[in-house]
Amino acid sequence: MPVPPQDLAQEKLAQAAGILGEQGVDLWLTLVRETSLTRDPCLDLLGGTYCAWQGAFLVSRTGERIAIVGRFDAPAVRALDAWDDVIGYDESIRPDLRAAIERLDPASIALNWSESDPAADGLTHGLWLVLQATLEGTPYAERLVSSEHVVNALRGRKSPAEVERVRAAVAETEEIFEAVTRALAPGLSELEIAELMHAEVERRGLGYSWDRDHCPAVNAGPEKEVGHAGPSGLRTRRGELLHVDFGVSKDEYCSDLQRVWYLLDEGESEAPPDVRAAWDALWAAMDAGATALRPGAVGWEVDAAARRTLTDAGFPEPMYALGHQLGRTAHAGGTLLGPRWDRYESAPLGRVEAGNVFTLEYGTAVPGRGYVGLEEDVLVTDDGVEWLSTPQRDLWRVE
Amino acid sequence: MPVPPQDLAQEKLAQAAGILGEQGVDLWLTLVRETSLTRDPCLDLLGGTYCAWQGAFLVSRTGERIAIVGRFDAPAVRALDAWDDVIGYDESIRPDLRAAIERLDPASIALNWSESDPAADGLTHGLWLVLQATLEGTPYAERLVSSEHVVNALRGRKSPAEVERVRAAVAETEEIFEAVTRALAPGLSELEIAELMHAEVERRGLGYSWDRDHCPAVNAGPEKEVGHAGPSGLRTRRGELLHVDFGVSKDEYCSDLQRVWYLLDEGESEAPPDVRAAWDALWAAMDAGATALRPGAVGWEVDAAARRTLTDAGFPEPMYALGHQLGRTAHAGGTLLGPRWDRYESAPLGRVEAGNVFTLEYGTAVPGRGYVGLEEDVLVTDDGVEWLSTPQRDLWRVE
Repeated sequence: MPVPPQDLAQEKLAQAAGILGEQGVDLWLTLVRETSLTRDPCLDLLGGTYCAWQGAFLVSRTGERIAIVGRFDAPAVRALDAWDDVIGYDESIRPDLRAAIERLDPASIALNWSESDPAADGLTHGLWLVLQATLEGTPYAERLVSSEHVVNALRGRKSPAEVERVRAAVAETEEIFEAVTRALAPGLSELEIAELMHAEVERRGLGYSWDRDHCPAVNAGPEKEVGHAGPSGLRTRRGELLHVDFGVSKDEYCSDLQRVWYLLDEGESEAPPDVRAAWDALWAAMDAGATALRPGAVGWEVDAAARRTLTDAGFPEPMYALGHQLGRTAHAGGTLLGPRWDRYESAPLGRVEAGNVFTLEYGTAVPGRGYVGLEEDVLVTDDGVEWLSTPQRDLWRVE
Repeated sequence: MPVPPQDLAQEKLAQAAGILGEQGVDLWLTLVRETSLTRDPCLDLLGGTYCAWQGAFLVSRTGERIAIVGRFDAPAVRALDAWDDVIGYDESIRPDLRAAIERLDPASIALNWSESDPAADGLTHGLWLVLQATLEGTPYAERLVSSEHVVNALRGRKSPAEVERVRAAVAETEEIFEAVTRALAPGLSELEIAELMHAEVERRGLGYSWDRDHCPAVNAGPEKEVGHAGPSGLRTRRGELLHVDFGVSKDEYCSDLQRVWYLLDEGESEAPPDVRAAWDALWAAMDAGATALRPGAVGWEVDAAARRTLTDAGFPEPMYALGHQLGRTAHAGGTLLGPRWDRYESAPLGRVEAGNVFTLEYGTAVPGRGYVGLEEDVLVTDDGVEWLSTPQRDLWRVE
């Protein structure tokens, strides 16, 4: 039985107050509006709800939890049973929000904006301007800081209940991969494979870790441009690879795995040397990354250990990170196991913490064969990693 | 057959260039990142896609359409066949984005931020800072304006294909209400009614207009606090009302309707006078609003016509707007038929345009009976309104 959502929200809200204390931040303010149109991802971390009108969710370092929401949004927030004080307003959020801030009198107010971390960047620019106007003439207008480090820690440090949920999503995913293995034969199209997987997801009442139209991403043979594109009419063929990138969401937590099959050609009993060489080099790189992955490690250093191993073996450098965090979404932000490239901003500079859940993923194209892409999900423990998925140590061969 | 998504995207992109010309804006820039975490609602208006890395979608007044996205996001954007130029980058979006802006040399760049309209407020504050840094030292940093009016016009002026989609969603919704009517009997709980409706939605392969946990909102009798809360264990009873607020999404377009049933008490052949008086007063107000709703009308004036009619009849003033726009989401932003309250910012000051689709909705609690809430969906035509739903002119009686 998963921990009920209320208890999970309580658990994360208590954790939040502790993190505010640790980081010396007095108040964390999540400001939202019409959450069916724009949804700050932090709202779900706080227990979730729908807000039609402007809503403010305040967590103080002393553990106070105040929600100020529109009158019609208030009953659902009260039902969460996670907020000490739920204030429902009619005409304007501003007087109640200003009064709450004045009473708490924080020296710093953390808001959900971040240049580098999308998981901590849910505040819209328009709402930022609304807040500026609300606080105008008060000293608090000058006390606004980014919540990036608070959100990273809160989202990244998974509680045991959260880890169990990721584990359950991973288990479902592996069962669906087994169903693919059973059905697989030369001539099946990418679309047919995706359809089979969608039927499994829906039969099991699961959600998708990313948009259904490219979840799974299915890549048959060497002609497909690998990326976040949907499955096509391309068909599996003997002597070629099938690569699938896939994840499901179960009880609001996600998995993210890649698996690879090789369709044996006439007379073959194993994959050809070019495929095996890529497989072994990728696993050596993944293992080098896994060995470097421990509390205190800096994100880019973990990636560099893996990257060096792969390029030293003569393979091209992957144009993406070794691993990202995983949780309520497949890409859960925070510290990234990736190179210090401009597009990753400061995410690779973060430090790994116990309780983080990461993917480890590297891949390479094998000319004339297709794409080999490995991806596993791991939990960072006090002294290393625990594999949450059953690592695909061997290429799956289709007779 | 609905218009295929590609054609709909082409239709809206062509419309966008026309609106830029009309409003004297040179360039419209939609900047996104990790769209599974934060999703600018304008992205779907532009044909939709998933972006893991930073993505920039540029539409110029001259009709040029440029997408600059991460290498792995590019195949899916190319497949949309809606963008003239799709640039895939590896390390940083900044050089390509700066180069594209310099080549177009716009006198104004509209960005998706708005203090009053959530549908035009998808740019996060972090990405706004990223753009500031990208444009630093160029003259373009000083040329940024809000896209609010562009987005309002583009989202609000529904093409015939868009109106057909809303109409199809409304038709499905009405059929589901009929299923409720067939099943309804005293003693059914709110949760059981919601379950029945969920089964219909899922059997028909539809989506929900808002979060499934309170779509439908089901309110049985006088004890329920009406709002955006989920259905409870409260049961329908003779002599009381059942009120349902519900909408479905079909081919990405939504409906939003409310319906009311009265469960006849022993010996009754119609609803009691208190319920009928509320019903008639609400309809008189709705009709006053519908009469005032035509191209050129100002949002708050339409609401005021309805509001005055209701309060003149001695009923309390509704604490919400008479109507909101409807489209890809139930609350689609833009001009609002609502009072000039602070929380609505400037939305009630907008003018109604032909092609807009609005809800009309007012309600009131009847002590001891429950909640009477009316809601219909209408299209603004050149000279008035066309009802997209079959108006519930009579309260539905349950024997």
